[in-house]
Amino acid sequence: MILDDLPTPCLVLDRGILQTNLDTMSRAVARHGVALRPHMKTAKSIDVARLAMASRDAAVGGITVSTIAEAEYFAAHGINDILYAVGITPQKLDQIAKLNAAGAAIMVVTDDLDVAGAIASHARPPQTLIEIDCGEARGGIAPDDPALTAIATRLGTRFAGVMSHAGHSYAGRSVADMRVLAEAERQAALRAVAHLRAGGFGIEIISVGSSPTALHAETLDGVSETRPGVYMFGDLFQAQIGTNGLGAIAVTVLASVIGRRPAERRVLVDAGALALSKDRSTQAVPVDYGFGLALDINGHPTLGHSIVSRANQEHGVIDLDPLAQLPAMPIGTKLRIAPNHTCLTSAAHDRYYVVDGGDTVVAIWPRVNGW
Amino acid sequence: MILDDLPTPCLVLDRGILQTNLDTMSRAVARHGVALRPHMKTAKSIDVARLAMASRDAAVGGITVSTIAEAEYFAAHGINDILYAVGITPQKLDQIAKLNAAGAAIMVVTDDLDVAGAIASHARPPQTLIEIDCGEARGGIAPDDPALTAIATRLGTRFAGVMSHAGHSYAGRSVADMRVLAEAERQAALRAVAHLRAGGFGIEIISVGSSPTALHAETLDGVSETRPGVYMFGDLFQAQIGTNGLGAIAVTVLASVIGRRPAERRVLVDAGALALSKDRSTQAVPVDYGFGLALDINGHPTLGHSIVSRANQEHGVIDLDPLAQLPAMPIGTKLRIAPNHTCLTSAAHDRYYVVDGGDTVVAIWPRVNGW
Repeated sequence: MILDDLPTPCLVLDRGILQTNLDTMSRAVARHGVALRPHMKTAKSIDVARLAMASRDAAVGGITVSTIAEAEYFAAHGINDILYAVGITPQKLDQIAKLNAAGAAIMVVTDDLDVAGAIASHARPPQTLIEIDCGEARGGIAPDDPALTAIATRLGTRFAGVMSHAGHSYAGRSVADMRVLAEAERQAALRAVAHLRAGGFGIEIISVGSSPTALHAETLDGVSETRPGVYMFGDLFQAQIGTNGLGAIAVTVLASVIGRRPAERRVLVDAGALALSKDRSTQAVPVDYGFGLALDINGHPTLGHSIVSRANQEHGVIDLDPLAQLPAMPIGTKLRIAPNHTCLTSAAHDRYYVVDGGDTVVAIWPRVNGW
Repeated sequence: MILDDLPTPCLVLDRGILQTNLDTMSRAVARHGVALRPHMKTAKSIDVARLAMASRDAAVGGITVSTIAEAEYFAAHGINDILYAVGITPQKLDQIAKLNAAGAAIMVVTDDLDVAGAIASHARPPQTLIEIDCGEARGGIAPDDPALTAIATRLGTRFAGVMSHAGHSYAGRSVADMRVLAEAERQAALRAVAHLRAGGFGIEIISVGSSPTALHAETLDGVSETRPGVYMFGDLFQAQIGTNGLGAIAVTVLASVIGRRPAERRVLVDAGALALSKDRSTQAVPVDYGFGLALDINGHPTLGHSIVSRANQEHGVIDLDPLAQLPAMPIGTKLRIAPNHTCLTSAAHDRYYVVDGGDTVVAIWPRVNGW
């Protein structure tokens, strides 16, 4: 099977680019002697998880997930050491307990005293990290908040450490920015740890990270692990904040031309808002790619700056680069579209058609979507 | 099972609101004596399709779909009269032919002379409508384009009529606007038909529409059918362009509070960019609801203007209405979130949890996602 045989729209994953991205991150993290706990929320695939784990310096260490569906899926495939990194609710503890009773070792996170109480009083309480806000202003409590030791006390023997997420690193625009943000996150985590140690608490896990900070941190001294995710695939947004090169985007959407508007120098494709997502991340960075950048079927940037300017449910409108010499594109011509935000684009699709540089489909890897 | 028992995030469909929306549209279309061919791209559910078909004036008439996956699914459930309303490619004709050989009567659309040739020369060519651009500037040729009769000629016996989509009606802001747009679409379709009739072609189907124009058209004289879709569920955007009232939104996302930031008057929920979509349609209309409007678990607007101001992959940040008297919202509290654009929000979910006014789940209806 070759790419030109595939039904469109669908997701194409280049295994060679993926492997390079995995190895780049593994080396970057190994410099610091901390564990790499890859976040599987982007790939949601056991095949990708196995490559990510094999790429690490040491065979030890678990993964991170963002949904209980992912936790169930990866546990069913034999990965036991899992951090579910979205604030737990009391109602979800039974599902976690069921997986742990079956052999998994899923840790959860909280920043709430009442939830800490619910965890401690559960019949099968999971190990729990306290979420620290290192500046993102989403989940977590401030490192100096007195609630920190109160939550740890309430968790009792279930308290296992702290977790932060430098999601605000996406506001950074350079390697220098990422170094500053990574250091601020490290300092925030360590300040929380200092308070906890002063209170007599033992700390097993100090978990930080995002792809750009994991890649560019100057030091992770004192930290025990980092949790990047999007680095595996890369995207147009991450390319502009220094995580990956434009040529290192591993996932693209294969689409067919379904309409031609030569007078307007436009083509329509069958990848619209559902196949690409409505994510407009690149609106905030120097080069705005609309809803994605059109590449040829081989994934090469031979179409210049031809971008998806409009995305209806199943229609994408591509504004063709006025300066590029373009081939004829009859109806049915296949293109590939690099995504703004690969996590959201991938989530619309139930599988990857895997290639390895060429146009031969060497594997089909399923994804675990939903909740 | 009641709503409070459900895993979150998930999709809740209120059957009573759905039925009212279906009946409102059926009456609006019946006024004109034209057929209602409901577009199933929003609901993607056989259960909803059956209600939509039963609500129509006459039991006759088919449906519209936007993907081949929908065509396969609805045909497998016994609906044969299907219009696949996204420009066909030559490569997709085999899939259509296979379904038609098994008893379906799937029609396709094109605006391209080469594709018309591919259809005519296929071993089992489907009936085909020519897509007319009535001002949306997406798919379709202009009604006065000489290619019109050339394509009809090329299609030969497969030519069955014309189709247009008034997608630009979404730029309308009032019932008066919708009347103007509906009339412009009707005129464009009839101009194309006049050219074709002058060329000696018989026309079986003259298919127009969008939810707002189907609802508000003053006349559909000369048209044979209309294809609204989003009217079944409604959403925050459609509420502001006159398709539905705010209280007539049938689909909401059930979410759990997973974090509290009282100092910032915010809560976090477990419905983020994947569960809600990144659609920002309401950015263009008077009231901007961010990524959705928070309602209480009963779907009532008791939280004032509390909106999802930020949507990361699995985290939604709700800015609570500073003027509303709000109840305590401990972690685990369930809310419902009305979507900006129900087609995109629904597509992230594989099923509807159906209620009928109250909080009892009376049914679970699956959806057909993907391609």
